[in-house]
Amino acid sequence: MASLKDVGERALIRNIIDMIRPGPFVGPGDDAAVVRIEDGRIVAGTDMVSFERHFPSGMTYEQFGWTAAAVNFSDMAGMGARPIGLLASFAMPGDMDESSLYEMVGGMDRCAEHCGTHIIGGDTKPGPGIIVGTALGSLDGRAPLLRSGARPGDMVAVTGRLGGAAAAFAALENGMEGCSLQPLLAPIPRVKEGIALSSLWAATSCMDLSDGLAEAAGSICRASGVGMEIRMEFIPAGGDVPKICSETNLSYTDALLYWGGDYELLFTFGRERLSELHSVGLDFSVIGAVTDGNGPYVTDGEERTVMKNARY
Amino acid sequence: MASLKDVGERALIRNIIDMIRPGPFVGPGDDAAVVRIEDGRIVAGTDMVSFERHFPSGMTYEQFGWTAAAVNFSDMAGMGARPIGLLASFAMPGDMDESSLYEMVGGMDRCAEHCGTHIIGGDTKPGPGIIVGTALGSLDGRAPLLRSGARPGDMVAVTGRLGGAAAAFAALENGMEGCSLQPLLAPIPRVKEGIALSSLWAATSCMDLSDGLAEAAGSICRASGVGMEIRMEFIPAGGDVPKICSETNLSYTDALLYWGGDYELLFTFGRERLSELHSVGLDFSVIGAVTDGNGPYVTDGEERTVMKNARY
Repeated sequence: MASLKDVGERALIRNIIDMIRPGPFVGPGDDAAVVRIEDGRIVAGTDMVSFERHFPSGMTYEQFGWTAAAVNFSDMAGMGARPIGLLASFAMPGDMDESSLYEMVGGMDRCAEHCGTHIIGGDTKPGPGIIVGTALGSLDGRAPLLRSGARPGDMVAVTGRLGGAAAAFAALENGMEGCSLQPLLAPIPRVKEGIALSSLWAATSCMDLSDGLAEAAGSICRASGVGMEIRMEFIPAGGDVPKICSETNLSYTDALLYWGGDYELLFTFGRERLSELHSVGLDFSVIGAVTDGNGPYVTDGEERTVMKNARY
Repeated sequence: MASLKDVGERALIRNIIDMIRPGPFVGPGDDAAVVRIEDGRIVAGTDMVSFERHFPSGMTYEQFGWTAAAVNFSDMAGMGARPIGLLASFAMPGDMDESSLYEMVGGMDRCAEHCGTHIIGGDTKPGPGIIVGTALGSLDGRAPLLRSGARPGDMVAVTGRLGGAAAAFAALENGMEGCSLQPLLAPIPRVKEGIALSSLWAATSCMDLSDGLAEAAGSICRASGVGMEIRMEFIPAGGDVPKICSETNLSYTDALLYWGGDYELLFTFGRERLSELHSVGLDFSVIGAVTDGNGPYVTDGEERTVMKNARY
């Protein structure tokens, strides 16, 4: 296989267009794509991933591409939107083998398929190994899930289980065998869950957890002007997390609160909706309550502390 | 002023959100933006620019930001779409002064304002100096301008004047004074012209010229399955182009056909629409005709040659 700079950008783009699944839209191949949407609103978000930060040893190019798509679809999930398209821009080293680029495209295309949509456009230029994705979504008439509607008295909940990405990273770094690496290498964006929360008009606020629980809780508190009391023992840890934390120097608190990389949703809702949320089969755990305080606190045993924000 | 890595990504994003013009939409500041559109279709395209390729000496950070936005709005113009939002992702060196980032954001915001829209979202991460923009557009009920509708017998035309970006680059490189640098440093995307062509249902094909006339002509010929005969003497050159070409080693042919960087539109239309296009005040020049041949040819004096494609 030739290297990217030998193949040339135009030929690479043609090859990529040939390999991705076609769908019911105009593009790729024109100046831009045209996508039909169901109501008068489009949801759009962009996120970038880089070899430097998001490509742990043990990850394949296909998984890196999957991740680049998943982080963007997770933003759609956090808004309660149904993905209707993905644009993908690649800034990759000229000496990279062209097959590696196609593996990344394949991973993005498969993640798009998993989320019910298609790659509709993109760009490729020389660079250090960065994928910038832009996801488009439709609300199909529903209200978007925002960060700003949490009210004192609401319950705080998360989908799925947390800490899996951090634990998988530690397991890889320490050569531990037999641990689940899927949360790190092929994270599943919670698109169905976001749509369900939005369909039920149940969530008063919602955000995805890709930057960690502390970051998300802080963002909802700031946007809503509220506080949160979260109980450490209520936070659902992924199956391998306690074991990996005990056998590596990954702290259990860091894995659950600060490390990030789990594409779950943090959301708040009125207590009166709890049984309804359980009845629809949503996979979630209540981890605390919204207060009229200022910012998020976590209580671990006897100790109550401000959730510090690792990213600030 | 602090460097980007000292300020931190979250604080940078907050500062950026504070500085850009707010508009009638949800975001930035949530997982994604929500934008209202006029009909049931969204137009979306993405393009990236880099310090390495798109930052000639003499350009300011603000102009680099303007360019990053303009290249994306030019894609909207090529589709006949009205821009309704811009997402901007920055991959910038950690040791860059934060004021430089804000100047780039300011340039993007001003270009968005010029094109009647807003920055609605984005991301920032460490990187070598890359901006990835994604423009969203609305057709407001019009048909999109595609590359695939040119028919033998149609006329071939371009908006504005060509070669200005190449000439400005040569002027800067050679220290020539008093030349117009605007086509290179602050290109104007032809949004109004694209919308006019789409409103009139006049263009049978259209594409923006940012990769050069030869590249665009080749793309329309491929997509439409036609040929083109273009006459070199009909191509409208920017005012300083002949002078700069005569005083530097920039070839006049390269400036007009191959160099690129002019954010004009190439389009085709039925001959019967010519007087109508003139009557609406559109700034354009007929440069040739569509044929039933295969690919674009250019005739310069007595010599007729295949337009080679510099980017293939």
